[in-house]
Amino acid sequence: MRIAYVNGQFCNYGDAAVHVEDRGFQFGDAVYEVWSVHEGKLLDADGHFERLVRSLGELRIQQPRSRGALELIIRELLRRNRVRNGLVYLQVSRGRARRDHAFPATPVTPTIVLTCKRLDFPASAARAEAGIAVITVPDLRWARCDIKTVNLLPNVLAKQAAREAGAAEAWLVDRDGNVTEGSSTNAWIVTKGGKVLTRQADNGILHGVTRAKIIECVQELGLEFEERPFTPDDVANAREAFLTSATSFVTPVTSINDRVIANGQPGSLACGLRDAYLTGA
Amino acid sequence: MRIAYVNGQFCNYGDAAVHVEDRGFQFGDAVYEVWSVHEGKLLDADGHFERLVRSLGELRIQQPRSRGALELIIRELLRRNRVRNGLVYLQVSRGRARRDHAFPATPVTPTIVLTCKRLDFPASAARAEAGIAVITVPDLRWARCDIKTVNLLPNVLAKQAAREAGAAEAWLVDRDGNVTEGSSTNAWIVTKGGKVLTRQADNGILHGVTRAKIIECVQELGLEFEERPFTPDDVANAREAFLTSATSFVTPVTSINDRVIANGQPGSLACGLRDAYLTGA
Repeated sequence: MRIAYVNGQFCNYGDAAVHVEDRGFQFGDAVYEVWSVHEGKLLDADGHFERLVRSLGELRIQQPRSRGALELIIRELLRRNRVRNGLVYLQVSRGRARRDHAFPATPVTPTIVLTCKRLDFPASAARAEAGIAVITVPDLRWARCDIKTVNLLPNVLAKQAAREAGAAEAWLVDRDGNVTEGSSTNAWIVTKGGKVLTRQADNGILHGVTRAKIIECVQELGLEFEERPFTPDDVANAREAFLTSATSFVTPVTSINDRVIANGQPGSLACGLRDAYLTGA
Repeated sequence: MRIAYVNGQFCNYGDAAVHVEDRGFQFGDAVYEVWSVHEGKLLDADGHFERLVRSLGELRIQQPRSRGALELIIRELLRRNRVRNGLVYLQVSRGRARRDHAFPATPVTPTIVLTCKRLDFPASAARAEAGIAVITVPDLRWARCDIKTVNLLPNVLAKQAAREAGAAEAWLVDRDGNVTEGSSTNAWIVTKGGKVLTRQADNGILHGVTRAKIIECVQELGLEFEERPFTPDDVANAREAFLTSATSFVTPVTSINDRVIANGQPGSLACGLRDAYLTGA
């Protein structure tokens, strides 16, 4: 029996519910985090907890549990679901209140939801070995993509466009013609000159926890690195392209809008970074 | 006992819940409508049902019930809650599915939620008689504000900023320095020359049903009218300003960012339009 955690209680997954006037459901007034679980261990636990605290702070949602308490709950959830390899999903909303756009005048208790599931890591590895295709779509999102909220409809539409085009991910292109990031991943290239590029982490992109870890790896390897925007043409003309996320780690990108990148094979640097990340994790 | 309607069943409001993996809760993958109820009658029933169909179509969410069936459910909901004056809230999400940004590969049944409540129309009338204050904040929203989705976090933050500034509403200002609309209302001014202005209904604003009705009123009255952007300075220098929405109808605005508009009293045109709207409704 699959088990979830909602507002202080473990419950059957099928019964895991929130009220229809939960502000997460009616306003998207909620934040979330996803951890990969590898051999029972949360990957980049610190980075995700720190980002959770930041997201809550930006929206002035009260932190519903201490980090220690959350870790205990997550550990128990993984145990009850017998998940040693997979992911944990945590969502915190501002809580349930009579519908009104402004924050509830009388503070309400935040809603906390946790689920976990097994993930097929060999399938992910196979995808990484083959390399994936991306398409580009206009970045329609709001101006605070640095907050990890559930206002994810533009991401949903972008991912669906990718799926329908036979691609694994959609990279989002802003009004200036630059790639910001993917619908659920950060975007990277290695230029012909060997420089590693990813967009600067301002309000326009999510500050990926895996992204930060890969920047560390890149710097430890002594590679040339810069945080700056690049265009779809830069991607098509790159030596390598790849994406990063908590659940896909590092995954090589071998085409963009059906244009083959380099020789169409996963780049050696991307493969090396994936190995380095998973070994260090 | 307050009653709600969720997925085919009337239930106690306190028990009205959706699953934690409802896409409305996890992605904001949902649309909504609000009708005012006046003496038991839905105001602008057609306009709201038509916009609902359009919003669902834009997101390719299946329409979960025919209009006739929805009207019967709404009527029964109002009866059970003994609401003759108030509002009805309807939300439709893409449904419940294992979390994945893209649409579920196997179509799921949309989630449908209906609630209603009594509204204090005399309080609304008093607010209209006094006039309200607005502030301006940057418009942080996504590029498809014409779809009435629950990705409402920027609207939440704007309304909260207004509340904290002692104002009733926040008007959103785009990158070009123009007012788009309010956080939950459309924005209007009457210029010193007597021209009525409201922003054109493109992808940058919600196509207000009340807005459309007021445009009809303005044209029937033979007033000069144009759909075009205006700035906060234009508002401060206007003869009148007002806002429209399904639940506030027409409400005069008497100051913007603490700058008094005209003589600081509700404009006669705005008051006339409110009366015309409520008489015709």
